[in-house]
Amino acid sequence: MSNRIPVGVLGATGMVGQNFIRLLSSHPWFEVAYVAASPTSAGKTYAQAVAGRWQMATPIPEAVAKLVVEDAGNVEAAKGRCALVFSAVDLDKKAIAALELAYAAAGFAVVSNNSAHRGTPDVPMIIPEVNPEHLDVIAAQRKARGWTTGCLAVKSNCSIQSYMTPVWALMKAGYRPKRMILTTLQAVSGAGYPGVPSLDMVDNIVPYIGGEEEKSEVEPLKVFGRVENGVIVPDSTITISAHCNRVPVVDGHTACVSLEFDGAKPALEEIVPIWRAFSAVPQELGLPMAPKQPIIYSDEANRPQPRKDRDLDKAMAVVVGRLRTCNVFDIRFVGLHHNTVRGASGGAILTAELMKARGLIG
Amino acid sequence: MSNRIPVGVLGATGMVGQNFIRLLSSHPWFEVAYVAASPTSAGKTYAQAVAGRWQMATPIPEAVAKLVVEDAGNVEAAKGRCALVFSAVDLDKKAIAALELAYAAAGFAVVSNNSAHRGTPDVPMIIPEVNPEHLDVIAAQRKARGWTTGCLAVKSNCSIQSYMTPVWALMKAGYRPKRMILTTLQAVSGAGYPGVPSLDMVDNIVPYIGGEEEKSEVEPLKVFGRVENGVIVPDSTITISAHCNRVPVVDGHTACVSLEFDGAKPALEEIVPIWRAFSAVPQELGLPMAPKQPIIYSDEANRPQPRKDRDLDKAMAVVVGRLRTCNVFDIRFVGLHHNTVRGASGGAILTAELMKARGLIG
Amino acid sequence: MSNRIPVGVLGATGMVGQNFIRLLSSHPWFEVAYVAASPTSAGKTYAQAVAGRWQMATPIPEAVAKLVVEDAGNVEAAKGRCALVFSAVDLDKKAIAALELAYAAAGFAVVSNNSAHRGTPDVPMIIPEVNPEHLDVIAAQRKARGWTTGCLAVKSNCSIQSYMTPVWALMKAGYRPKRMILTTLQAVSGAGYPGVPSLDMVDNIVPYIGGEEEKSEVEPLKVFGRVENGVIVPDSTITISAHCNRVPVVDGHTACVSLEFDGAKPALEEIVPIWRAFSAVPQELGLPMAPKQPIIYSDEANRPQPRKDRDLDKAMAVVVGRLRTCNVFDIRFVGLHHNTVRGASGGAILTAELMKARGLIG
Amino acid sequence: MSNRIPVGVLGATGMVGQNFIRLLSSHPWFEVAYVAASPTSAGKTYAQAVAGRWQMATPIPEAVAKLVVEDAGNVEAAKGRCALVFSAVDLDKKAIAALELAYAAAGFAVVSNNSAHRGTPDVPMIIPEVNPEHLDVIAAQRKARGWTTGCLAVKSNCSIQSYMTPVWALMKAGYRPKRMILTTLQAVSGAGYPGVPSLDMVDNIVPYIGGEEEKSEVEPLKVFGRVENGVIVPDSTITISAHCNRVPVVDGHTACVSLEFDGAKPALEEIVPIWRAFSAVPQELGLPMAPKQPIIYSDEANRPQPRKDRDLDKAMAVVVGRLRTCNVFDIRFVGLHHNTVRGASGGAILTAELMKARGLIG
Repeated sequence: MSNRIPVGVLGATGMVGQNFIRLLSSHPWFEVAYVAASPTSAGKTYAQAVAGRWQMATPIPEAVAKLVVEDAGNVEAAKGRCALVFSAVDLDKKAIAALELAYAAAGFAVVSNNSAHRGTPDVPMIIPEVNPEHLDVIAAQRKARGWTTGCLAVKSNCSIQSYMTPVWALMKAGYRPKRMILTTLQAVSGAGYPGVPSLDMVDNIVPYIGGEEEKSEVEPLKVFGRVENGVIVPDSTITISAHCNRVPVVDGHTACVSLEFDGAKPALEEIVPIWRAFSAVPQELGLPMAPKQPIIYSDEANRPQPRKDRDLDKAMAVVVGRLRTCNVFDIRFVGLHHNTVRGASGGAILTAELMKARGLIG
Repeated sequence: MSNRIPVGVLGATGMVGQNFIRLLSSHPWFEVAYVAASPTSAGKTYAQAVAGRWQMATPIPEAVAKLVVEDAGNVEAAKGRCALVFSAVDLDKKAIAALELAYAAAGFAVVSNNSAHRGTPDVPMIIPEVNPEHLDVIAAQRKARGWTTGCLAVKSNCSIQSYMTPVWALMKAGYRPKRMILTTLQAVSGAGYPGVPSLDMVDNIVPYIGGEEEKSEVEPLKVFGRVENGVIVPDSTITISAHCNRVPVVDGHTACVSLEFDGAKPALEEIVPIWRAFSAVPQELGLPMAPKQPIIYSDEANRPQPRKDRDLDKAMAVVVGRLRTCNVFDIRFVGLHHNTVRGASGGAILTAELMKARGLIG
Repeated sequence: MSNRIPVGVLGATGMVGQNFIRLLSSHPWFEVAYVAASPTSAGKTYAQAVAGRWQMATPIPEAVAKLVVEDAGNVEAAKGRCALVFSAVDLDKKAIAALELAYAAAGFAVVSNNSAHRGTPDVPMIIPEVNPEHLDVIAAQRKARGWTTGCLAVKSNCSIQSYMTPVWALMKAGYRPKRMILTTLQAVSGAGYPGVPSLDMVDNIVPYIGGEEEKSEVEPLKVFGRVENGVIVPDSTITISAHCNRVPVVDGHTACVSLEFDGAKPALEEIVPIWRAFSAVPQELGLPMAPKQPIIYSDEANRPQPRKDRDLDKAMAVVVGRLRTCNVFDIRFVGLHHNTVRGASGGAILTAELMKARGLIG
Repeated sequence: MSNRIPVGVLGATGMVGQNFIRLLSSHPWFEVAYVAASPTSAGKTYAQAVAGRWQMATPIPEAVAKLVVEDAGNVEAAKGRCALVFSAVDLDKKAIAALELAYAAAGFAVVSNNSAHRGTPDVPMIIPEVNPEHLDVIAAQRKARGWTTGCLAVKSNCSIQSYMTPVWALMKAGYRPKRMILTTLQAVSGAGYPGVPSLDMVDNIVPYIGGEEEKSEVEPLKVFGRVENGVIVPDSTITISAHCNRVPVVDGHTACVSLEFDGAKPALEEIVPIWRAFSAVPQELGLPMAPKQPIIYSDEANRPQPRKDRDLDKAMAVVVGRLRTCNVFDIRFVGLHHNTVRGASGGAILTAELMKARGLIG
């Protein structure tokens, strides 16, 4: 028998849930022991529940295929079957918020892919290479909420991850961003399945993604914030304006970024070496899901491109290119990441690995 | 017999040339009487020359199909056969520059789709709704160059036309732009045929178009400039930063624009009425190719979209949407235009119509 | 005031309904005077009802935009407002069948885009160039059902129309098909909006369309059948095997056809002239929606192609190419038609025109 | 130092060559020790030679990146550096034919991806699961041509591999095909880079691939043939008619097949078990590139689909679905394979493994 930590996936039958199942299938630390979804799926085997809906390019892992799906709303059912749950449930925001708190209160470590608790002050929103120390807030979280083993951490919206790490690397090198104007070209997998109609994506793009621009402008401030008095205090020095577009790409969000610094400005030739040398806590800890090189810079004039670069380093790297001077601000560049791996399930798993390494799980 | 003005198309067999042929097929003022292309095509009928390469969705106009293609390099051959030539030749920039001057020197009015003379100070770069008075420079052009009936005007790069007219409408209303950061999502037809490989456009976008960003940052300054001492003096008060991307769309360039004003700023609710009320010289003159409403504003949250909006008003309107406050600058919006009609052949024909109305042709 | 015949569109807010509205906007005989849809839309103006859902590339016709949408289930409401209704309602098959009968019983001429009555023996399934004389069954239909002015005709499934007219042209020339094996590559518009998910259509095709192969194998037999004793007796001499695929094309169904003749076989060089010379009742009557040339044969090696050929002759022509010998049967060819015009709304309007010309309407 | 067999890749910089480099990067038996291409690339490192042209989604393997590219036309240069060469050179057919013979004559085992020698009677065209015993012809080949260690084997055209193995599995079970009519929907990677223009693949399909139908109708006969008197005698009992289409898919050719048997016909319910149980020489020998299960049958109604199924079992499986009765012939099904792996480089590597296992290399 395995001595891996048993984990659960809530919302296991949706696109994000399927990615969790796929990515965890050969994980050295975690083992999917529990799958839960809507009452409609409950009682079926996982294979039955996703029949005709499995969207991954690899088969359903055999060990998970035969698990019986539970009702995600039934917290009791999960007890004793797993220590950690990944949340990808598809409910209204309020219901998700309540459900995730219930799991945490019941003693589970909860790592959520949902946006419901991103604004909750004592819930850390983690990009493991950027703000791992925000996990420190969990002690206060547990104390304030009377939880013992339970806790709750979330990942940020996927669309911001194409540039957060590159910007952070510059911040760590002493160059603070002041203003950013950016445009994203986002993949259809971000909207799940069935998601975006093909009539919108054949010979077309859609210059709008509901709620996405607002998230893109607010979430980075929390990620770049600091832990103070048991809560995360968002950064208040950076202003962001985002234009978010949907394009006919399966996976991989691209961002075109114009960036202005506050005070010291790096010379253009300093920047690529900073990015290439960047390494952070997940790399130092050798976490299983961590990319070896969190930021890969491409020297080719027309890269990064989603289909050709999204899978680099287990689809966990941020791939950057086209660094050049900005006529209006200081610099311009293009960033890319794999939105359903780095930006969703993979990022959540890396966060859980970080939590495990910090003793917060199990 | 027709009393329409006989016109020639140089580079008639390429994509832009084909669009000229298509759009001129039922023009009330102009009649294609002369087609010229590379020496390879010379001597064939037009139908033979484009066999297997005709990319338009309507058949080759019968009257043009049987014209014998001439060598575009042979200026003499065109004499007596047309008064106006549209230039869409595909040569190196220097050769194009020389050839267009040769046609003008030989007495032809030349309206060019090429970039070769966009930087030439006494050559007007016309967006008919924006700077029709730049045609005034042609008197000086003729005098300085010793031309009599000949003259040369060019159209701007297509990619900027998604936002030039909307910005100009605000300028006319008293609101001057100071800084613009914009990202374009450009259609593949802009690169001609064969152009962009499908391996770059299936499940992919390319965040780079050679030379396009530079043109996007320089050309608007000339269009917004003024005629002084026989040349166009570019505007020097506006700074532009452009990110240009290729996306899997057949026709229609989309631009996401963040705009900062210099001095007076319009209230958000003033702007849409300004755009909807905007009308200019082509509308006043009732030019055949002029859209009735040069700027169409869409109230729907997710528009404009290229496939659904590019064909509005003979594909000659600029369609705008998503006007909102910019966190960083003053306003944000999305603009769209049909790149091979409004942005290329259609725009050149409208320019020729304007020249005809001003007595510069025939 | 117009003296056009007032017509109604049932299911006016869906994709097919929108196409009816678009195509009828400048029809010389018919005028949209009545629009009906689901109870959810009832009471709104048409513009309100389709807000955010209008998929056409031209604006909502002004005259229709302000019509108040009625409940399609309320037959009484239509009385006195129109003589003819086009049915594109989206209900379950049984409910559609009943509703269309109710409209016919109430005195309306009904032309349906739905499949509900395609199998009803006394309801003609019309491809106007192929079986116009099937309208003769309407006399018996009226008598048997006790209808006076009311009547019901349907159009066939779109997917078969890429080859029905070409095959029929050969039949008329004396060459009877015996066996056909064909594969279709069908556009996403055939599934309506939202319809096919983009995750199925980016870097993908789907080799299955529910129910389509069965329709493709049965409906041609009825279209090629004969009127006898007040019903349509299907042809029993032809056998068809169809493979139906969904491909990332907006509009335009392509079919690859292998055909075996029964008895006399045409020489390959006879066939294209037969197709090019083919003309039928709609052409003879000069019906407004009729293409001038029902079958356009392309000599180019790689045509027809959906985006480049679907719009020929008001998108009402069938475009054929690649005629060649079949190793296994007798001949092979590729056929294409515009599925939402020729294959749906346009074909239904042409049928209605034929009915009007035959004195069956108004 | 490695004791893997040093191999060369001729035409290493093209798409097929890049796939060889990618697939061989961690091969247990073979090691890329030699890369050759056109004179233009010769003298550069491999990394330099493919700069801006590397199309794989994984980085250039480090060991190959620094190899200096040789001129593929220079057979002498390869001597002593490798025992086996994979040929993916891009020359005219005649030049390829001569060059491959020259390498074989010089003592190299040559496994070719090109079509030049597919019709050469003493050159085996191998699909390793179907006709491994055709390698027996190499003894005669060597004798007749005076070669000692050199030899030449080729792989078949990719488009036929979506159905060859499934049909062969039925043949082995005693059911001989008599007639087949099939339609392929082929990926753009089959045409290399730049290959198919995006203007042909956005909102479009192309119902023609030059030479592909002819290959599809002839090559299966050789693969199903027998070795006799030192040559391969093609099967003469099967007749095939192929319709080949290009569709906007990156990788993965789909085929819709109608099949008639000669004599005994399997019951429909026998067939899937035959396919699922099928195993052949590569599986018995445990060849590194061999899929565990050569034919994977999917029970889902709408599979196989290229993006979702092409990568199964190292992209080396043929994925089949939609088995059903054919109205005209006996059965119908859909087959899919990964055209640049199973159908090109992967298939050639598997063939080389088979040759190694048979003692024909090294």
